[in-house]
Amino acid sequence: MSTAVSPLAPRSVPDLPPIRGIRIATGAAGIKYRDRTDVLLMSFDEGTAVAGVLTTTRCPSAPVDHCRQALVGGRARVLVVNSGNANAFTGRRGVATTNATAEAAAELAGCSPDEVFLASTGVIGEPLDPAKIVSHLAALAEQAAPDGWLEAARAIMTTDTYAKVATASVRIGDVDVRINGIAKGAGMIAPDMATMLSFVATDARIRPEVLQALLARAVAPSFNSVTVDSDTSTSDTLLVFATGAAGNAEPAGADDPALAEFAGALDALLLDLARQVARDGEGARKEIQVTVEGASDPRSAKRIALSIANSPLVKTAVAGEDANWGRVVMAVGKAGEPAERDRLAIWFNDVRVAHEGERDPAYSEAEASSAMRQDIIAIRVDLGLGTGRWTVYSCDLTKDYVAINGDYRS
Amino acid sequence: MSTAVSPLAPRSVPDLPPIRGIRIATGAAGIKYRDRTDVLLMSFDEGTAVAGVLTTTRCPSAPVDHCRQALVGGRARVLVVNSGNANAFTGRRGVATTNATAEAAAELAGCSPDEVFLASTGVIGEPLDPAKIVSHLAALAEQAAPDGWLEAARAIMTTDTYAKVATASVRIGDVDVRINGIAKGAGMIAPDMATMLSFVATDARIRPEVLQALLARAVAPSFNSVTVDSDTSTSDTLLVFATGAAGNAEPAGADDPALAEFAGALDALLLDLARQVARDGEGARKEIQVTVEGASDPRSAKRIALSIANSPLVKTAVAGEDANWGRVVMAVGKAGEPAERDRLAIWFNDVRVAHEGERDPAYSEAEASSAMRQDIIAIRVDLGLGTGRWTVYSCDLTKDYVAINGDYRS
Repeated sequence: MSTAVSPLAPRSVPDLPPIRGIRIATGAAGIKYRDRTDVLLMSFDEGTAVAGVLTTTRCPSAPVDHCRQALVGGRARVLVVNSGNANAFTGRRGVATTNATAEAAAELAGCSPDEVFLASTGVIGEPLDPAKIVSHLAALAEQAAPDGWLEAARAIMTTDTYAKVATASVRIGDVDVRINGIAKGAGMIAPDMATMLSFVATDARIRPEVLQALLARAVAPSFNSVTVDSDTSTSDTLLVFATGAAGNAEPAGADDPALAEFAGALDALLLDLARQVARDGEGARKEIQVTVEGASDPRSAKRIALSIANSPLVKTAVAGEDANWGRVVMAVGKAGEPAERDRLAIWFNDVRVAHEGERDPAYSEAEASSAMRQDIIAIRVDLGLGTGRWTVYSCDLTKDYVAINGDYRS
Repeated sequence: MSTAVSPLAPRSVPDLPPIRGIRIATGAAGIKYRDRTDVLLMSFDEGTAVAGVLTTTRCPSAPVDHCRQALVGGRARVLVVNSGNANAFTGRRGVATTNATAEAAAELAGCSPDEVFLASTGVIGEPLDPAKIVSHLAALAEQAAPDGWLEAARAIMTTDTYAKVATASVRIGDVDVRINGIAKGAGMIAPDMATMLSFVATDARIRPEVLQALLARAVAPSFNSVTVDSDTSTSDTLLVFATGAAGNAEPAGADDPALAEFAGALDALLLDLARQVARDGEGARKEIQVTVEGASDPRSAKRIALSIANSPLVKTAVAGEDANWGRVVMAVGKAGEPAERDRLAIWFNDVRVAHEGERDPAYSEAEASSAMRQDIIAIRVDLGLGTGRWTVYSCDLTKDYVAINGDYRS
């Protein structure tokens, strides 16, 4: 098993400034890993709004069930996250663990357990002893400080090889606001109207229902367009917290023109984090960006793009730097969506390899091979049918994926 | 890239007897491979019925298009198959190749091109020169002899590590009839109402529409329940030929009691070949049999079974001999089919690892690990909802799959 940092890790990591109204602490509870942090506590000032999207799996983890219920209230005071154990498929004991954790955190913060948000990531099916987390909460609450975003990102990692952070500063009206985000991957990544673990926070003042509407829009082309291995997790959780400490005038709705810049920054920040997750896919050596255009509609474009991005044969071809567009044809064909063989055109990084259902007349093996040596492989398919378009982000499939996952649990 | 024979290869290969009314020849046309045969010709006596199922891909190969048209007539005189080039996504040149091949074969056999069946397997998107095949047809037709079934199976191999053959003898009424079959895999295997390449022949007398009905039933639990890598090919073709030379009384329909034994043997023969394909999946070291029971209906059971069998995380866990039932839960959850987390029970080779949504109270790591060391890993999931049941056949995902497919085309 390779433990080296992904060659696709960001060259530089931005400094994440404090977000007014938020304090952070991390600790080492020894849940599974040794010699590293594995618990994250964030506390939010009173009045913090929260929005979220959660996995659509039929077998959600206990923390996902807790968050789904807590999101109804739209208010957050505490977030507690652990890595090393997903508290998924743990039955009544799993619920007891989330209840005990939420109650302990609520007591410390002087709030309701419904204002405590929980997430767990790691092994599925192993009982998670709440004492391991609860025993640290008082100390974490005491230590919590405005700085520590990078440490937060590190504490939630499992097989990730680098911490995933992003930040932006924008204006709502004439008020400066900040957005910070962290995320973790790195396998079991195929969010379905949801995501892996990601936590985003802003000091903007935005009502929960407006925040939810902004999030729903932003998640579709970002986290919901990422796939590492087509395997949707039991624990996918994306939460956005807005403390309101910036003091901007409360926007009327998601389409309020004052929110345009904020919405654009949120979109970009989620896409940045989502691509970081794809680029740290287990064993990844190349990022794959699949764009399908000319589809009958965007939904159809997305399904075909996912069919290509999830195809083991396409992913291994990219790993082998082989411009094997025949496998792209195969993946288009199997998607079950409208497509006409004799209208297809396919590009690898701007080198057109296929045109009107045949190999491009100007096809050059040397040119195609050169394109495949890049770090980012953009596969573009024009179906020639309509105006539907979608882009999906993924990574290649290497022997390291097999090595990492053939020996993860033990 | 490993070229060793799969450890799951059959220990012994049956002798396939001649089928009355059929003659076989193989040749080396040098289409892609050196030092091996790559063209197969079968000729059928007049009156031979044919039935078939073909890939449902939106991007079928030119030979698939030809067969779909030719099947309408229900009569066959010649089958020409080549390996090394799939003649898929080859546009007008691909059609010209199938036309030229069918016409040349028809002229030699004194039949219509619609009685000639064609299949090609290998690289997608490379033009296939018909002269390479046509120039061999006269010699092949002359050499054709009743024996040669094993050689036929060898000539159609691509990345297969062993030839796949099966045979059966049964009675229709008081007449002995034989069934022989051959197949090839070994990647891009996820037939969808169709199959990879497989050719089955019998000397039974059965009308084309009855043969088609028998085939449609037999293919559902066999070839249509096999997946190596979830990638459905552009070329999947399964044809069944019935020469009628045995002289049995023509059955009235697929439900004619006289056909019961034949139908059972056809079912078993297709399942045998399909499992041989799964067991020779690229890089396979273990066969995986996923049975989902207690589903709301068989369709739902099949979808969940495929979700498990196609999950890279489940397949790599099996490769690593890790009884990681959490990944099975994940795959059940992501299938989008009715399932209740707290009713699930999961077995690996008769060791119950999960029960009522939690780790089995009697779970023993030693027992589970021992189960995972077998060659065949039977994963059984009881959803506890209804009576729907399905079994899917697959294989593990190893580094060799990545190696084979990261460098296949070049």
